[in-house]
Amino acid sequence: MLPISFGSDNHSGVHPLVMKALADANEGFCFGYGDDELSENVCSELANLFGGGCDVYLVMTGTGANVIALQSLLSSFNAVICAKTSHINVDECGAVQKFTQARLYPVETPDGKLSPELILPVLGGRGDQHHSQKKIVSITQNTEYGTTYTIEELKTLADFVHSRNMYFHIDGARLANAAAHLNVSLKEITKDIGADIVSFGGTKNGMMFGEAIISYVPQLTQDIIYYRKQATQLYSKHRFISAQFAAYLKDKLWFELAKKANANALILSEKLAAISQIQITQKVQANAVFLILPPDWIVSLQERYRFYMWDEDRFEARLMCSWNTTIEQIDAIVDDVKELANK
Amino acid sequence: MLPISFGSDNHSGVHPLVMKALADANEGFCFGYGDDELSENVCSELANLFGGGCDVYLVMTGTGANVIALQSLLSSFNAVICAKTSHINVDECGAVQKFTQARLYPVETPDGKLSPELILPVLGGRGDQHHSQKKIVSITQNTEYGTTYTIEELKTLADFVHSRNMYFHIDGARLANAAAHLNVSLKEITKDIGADIVSFGGTKNGMMFGEAIISYVPQLTQDIIYYRKQATQLYSKHRFISAQFAAYLKDKLWFELAKKANANALILSEKLAAISQIQITQKVQANAVFLILPPDWIVSLQERYRFYMWDEDRFEARLMCSWNTTIEQIDAIVDDVKELANK
Amino acid sequence: MLPISFGSDNHSGVHPLVMKALADANEGFCFGYGDDELSENVCSELANLFGGGCDVYLVMTGTGANVIALQSLLSSFNAVICAKTSHINVDECGAVQKFTQARLYPVETPDGKLSPELILPVLGGRGDQHHSQKKIVSITQNTEYGTTYTIEELKTLADFVHSRNMYFHIDGARLANAAAHLNVSLKEITKDIGADIVSFGGTKNGMMFGEAIISYVPQLTQDIIYYRKQATQLYSKHRFISAQFAAYLKDKLWFELAKKANANALILSEKLAAISQIQITQKVQANAVFLILPPDWIVSLQERYRFYMWDEDRFEARLMCSWNTTIEQIDAIVDDVKELANK
Amino acid sequence: MLPISFGSDNHSGVHPLVMKALADANEGFCFGYGDDELSENVCSELANLFGGGCDVYLVMTGTGANVIALQSLLSSFNAVICAKTSHINVDECGAVQKFTQARLYPVETPDGKLSPELILPVLGGRGDQHHSQKKIVSITQNTEYGTTYTIEELKTLADFVHSRNMYFHIDGARLANAAAHLNVSLKEITKDIGADIVSFGGTKNGMMFGEAIISYVPQLTQDIIYYRKQATQLYSKHRFISAQFAAYLKDKLWFELAKKANANALILSEKLAAISQIQITQKVQANAVFLILPPDWIVSLQERYRFYMWDEDRFEARLMCSWNTTIEQIDAIVDDVKELANK
Repeated sequence: MLPISFGSDNHSGVHPLVMKALADANEGFCFGYGDDELSENVCSELANLFGGGCDVYLVMTGTGANVIALQSLLSSFNAVICAKTSHINVDECGAVQKFTQARLYPVETPDGKLSPELILPVLGGRGDQHHSQKKIVSITQNTEYGTTYTIEELKTLADFVHSRNMYFHIDGARLANAAAHLNVSLKEITKDIGADIVSFGGTKNGMMFGEAIISYVPQLTQDIIYYRKQATQLYSKHRFISAQFAAYLKDKLWFELAKKANANALILSEKLAAISQIQITQKVQANAVFLILPPDWIVSLQERYRFYMWDEDRFEARLMCSWNTTIEQIDAIVDDVKELANK
Repeated sequence: MLPISFGSDNHSGVHPLVMKALADANEGFCFGYGDDELSENVCSELANLFGGGCDVYLVMTGTGANVIALQSLLSSFNAVICAKTSHINVDECGAVQKFTQARLYPVETPDGKLSPELILPVLGGRGDQHHSQKKIVSITQNTEYGTTYTIEELKTLADFVHSRNMYFHIDGARLANAAAHLNVSLKEITKDIGADIVSFGGTKNGMMFGEAIISYVPQLTQDIIYYRKQATQLYSKHRFISAQFAAYLKDKLWFELAKKANANALILSEKLAAISQIQITQKVQANAVFLILPPDWIVSLQERYRFYMWDEDRFEARLMCSWNTTIEQIDAIVDDVKELANK
Repeated sequence: MLPISFGSDNHSGVHPLVMKALADANEGFCFGYGDDELSENVCSELANLFGGGCDVYLVMTGTGANVIALQSLLSSFNAVICAKTSHINVDECGAVQKFTQARLYPVETPDGKLSPELILPVLGGRGDQHHSQKKIVSITQNTEYGTTYTIEELKTLADFVHSRNMYFHIDGARLANAAAHLNVSLKEITKDIGADIVSFGGTKNGMMFGEAIISYVPQLTQDIIYYRKQATQLYSKHRFISAQFAAYLKDKLWFELAKKANANALILSEKLAAISQIQITQKVQANAVFLILPPDWIVSLQERYRFYMWDEDRFEARLMCSWNTTIEQIDAIVDDVKELANK
Repeated sequence: MLPISFGSDNHSGVHPLVMKALADANEGFCFGYGDDELSENVCSELANLFGGGCDVYLVMTGTGANVIALQSLLSSFNAVICAKTSHINVDECGAVQKFTQARLYPVETPDGKLSPELILPVLGGRGDQHHSQKKIVSITQNTEYGTTYTIEELKTLADFVHSRNMYFHIDGARLANAAAHLNVSLKEITKDIGADIVSFGGTKNGMMFGEAIISYVPQLTQDIIYYRKQATQLYSKHRFISAQFAAYLKDKLWFELAKKANANALILSEKLAAISQIQITQKVQANAVFLILPPDWIVSLQERYRFYMWDEDRFEARLMCSWNTTIEQIDAIVDDVKELANK
């Protein structure tokens, strides 16, 4: 039997409605590379969902979405300001640097969230030929710490970014979880707050694969079609990415799945917080729970459950919930933790 | 109703056994990024199929497979010799140049096939600091013209390449079709003839997505794990690529599908060759038929069938067959062509 | 004693007036990186010489000038059309591909010169996401074959390039020789014919080092200051590049030196053409002489004179003259050739 | 009259002996690109000076030297650990990232100096495909803060670096000043302490231009000849770089000039330290003086002397001395500071 995993939301499989959509799309011939009716419809639907006035491009992986979105607005002498914990800085093996040839300026944050105050000190060197020119501020919504920017925080940040003639990028691999946490539409946390370019993830929230790039500066990003191909991210049998998104958008499945994953994390964190030896280290504003554990519990727990140590030195672990985490699975780990606590 | 397509083998869908494997794999939790039992087993199985002594890496797209395989053996000052018609030269929007920073030396060929005679004239400049250093000869098997290298041709070419201290890369997006045409094992046209690094395609032959990189110089290509991630080609929900390959390999499905596609092309070409106004321009050694048509037939045919003009100036068209092309579809286009011929 | 060299115009040294200017500039403190009065004046002077309305940037090497000029107008998915014999294609070890990540489309030419007719066949694929997008046509004036485009040819080519929404780049490592051959101003063969971006070489014509980039699309190329630094071509002690250019421009020294080098080549070619075993293979329109020699003369001549075999298979040699080649040196090699001819 | 500059050591000119060597080298023909006797001799001489067993390559600029040295040991998925204040991190407009496609891990330091303790916290992620793989630790000797690593510190650091299977790079743009400060040979602070690859600067210490790359891992760095050309750093009229180095090495001119510059800085710092409103912020171990000034002195001083504010927020200035700074110039600025102090 497979172990229960709180390791990552991508340890979960594919939602049955998405799987059914894949099977349904598998009929007859279909033009490749996005030049089919289903793909065109899904891109329109996504554009509407994000408030219109934007271009939409479908790609295969989250790293692909980030790399292409950033490339479309960068030259090699530019730089991207991001949180030190951001996926583009930590977990993509230098893909952004490789693809854009630009550099990252990672900024230390307490909770994964950037703010004008944190960004200000690294803004020097504009117009000086010796220095990389900062052009994009990139945030992750929600963050790698499971925290979520409020609408007010997003607006403040976007205004600040634009006031410095930079662009505002949102890595939304878990944007659905952010929308569900804030109980708002996708438009309200992207177009309405002043985002310039956004990725909207599907893979971590019940799709098999597939991410969308939404550009609110379409006149600047027409070249994405070439960058996508050059980045090896133009999928030939495009209908199978579009079919997934169609199912994902239908009846707000994306929202329901994210809401479920978030609710799971909240339940898990509340139950764990009641155990005195456990310290919850970050606010639970999405589907992740960060906690410090007594060191001697770790091995024992990892024998029965999959999860990652986020910071080995502090004994801080990350427990991820997903759309198909069950109350039974939550109770199982909580019971086992309690047993350790009572020893 | 969808039109019949001879446009590309990627206009076809997914084989039912592959689709079933995807559904079956969708159970419970599973580690991501290839760190699961199914992925490990499938890589072993692929390694055996290719004769052993090789490392296997799974990726999402064919361009991804080419880019990563070539990167693993190139520095930025190197060059790759390839046929002018090769996919890496024509159809990847410069992905190889972007990713490797090396350059291509495309060589004119009559039928898409390279030979020592064709390569010799471009071999100058070795050891001279002013010139890009040629390090890889890359062929497509079967070629973009639907022609297939014989085992003898492959051996001769590989020996020549090695005698010049270069490496031999095979873009095998349609390697299954080549094996089926020659009626040999994959090992016989890769390991046994002296290939160094090979891609083995699934997408064009009944899979939803998925390609394998096989390296016969594993000590030189350990870094592929990093290049794959950096190239945005490391798939998080890896089990869904592995499940497809498992079904594709079972009972030699890959071979049966390719054999069927090849047979379709042969039937189509023989029926068309019998029409006096049609000139078949390349040997049919896989699943493609190249032919010159009377110019005034083209619009009329393209209204009813999808296919591409390969060379507009010569009125040369390409008709691709796939594993699910039917005799009825072949007869339909042949009948329509005959009708035009008899007008 | 040093052998006489017809190997390259960079085998010659520095003109005494340039050397004197270097010594004169070596007084007191001076701001670096171009931020000094001398550098500003020289850039103004160059801008005037090239007709005004242009920006001027000084760099150290010819490859540096090409790489930066092309980078300023290219994205990684673009391509540059050039002659197969062009320096950027043959002699820069892939620097353009490395720096711009774009690709080159080398075109075969009889004499190193491009024309609309030669370019037309490679212009396909515009707007298609699978193909590199051609954006620049780059010529060398004069060419690597010592031939010079006429003003009419330049105009025709530039008009054609612009009609296809591309830019026109001139690698002018020997632009002085072209101007001297045509007996025109630099403005007449750059701004007036419709050039977009040009390099103007100093190193091969009597300077110690130094090239200028002239951009006639200044609003598009403001980023050159960053690309120049990133390309390692921003010289700290800038006054020493500017001082050379000041001397080079004074009293049209650049023109006089080029005229002298061209005249030397003409004399040499006429004397050699009179020897029946010698075949001059290209028109002598600058400072190079291309000729086919009896194979058994080569070793003997190369013992006494430095020169390169351009095409070993055809026994075609290149003899370069420079501003300080003397009539005695020309007579010496001609006499030795005559002696071989009379054996 | 030109203002006195404490802005940078590259605001000074060329030493007369170097200038004379340039004039002397300007005679007759000479092969280009390093293929001449003078260049070969100078490279041998440099190799001896650095202790032998190394390869030497001459380049034009300091950024060029860094970029090529690092490229020769890096793949695109690698990373370089460096001080946050290092030239490669701050002052090269992303040239290292552009050229190598690898990333930098800048580490905060109090005085520009790295140590095992400072490096340890960033060493995670080795062998994990999601993370850039650290491969080089790069230091600047002496540092951008004018501090100098002791031989003991260098040994400790090099041993640590090698114990982690990384390479040790020294950006020695001012290596001469470090040797002069420590009163040791170049060999003692490079080969003997375990350096793998080193740049040795000439431009900032009396040469017109020219830097040398010294590789102690010659079997790994044979490709530098190609990287140098590709980096636009292969100088055609190579004799003029070699002639400068020949003069620079003769009678240890490099050492004498650096000793003079260092002594100037020490005198300047001692005189300034005696003024109570001035705070010297870094140890003076080379030719730089860092100091905090009363804010209202700055404009007044900058009217008469060129120097840079290093940290505007702290009112920290940098005063650079060079080989041709005079006691009169030092006394002049000290007197003016005293006058401000006594107001």
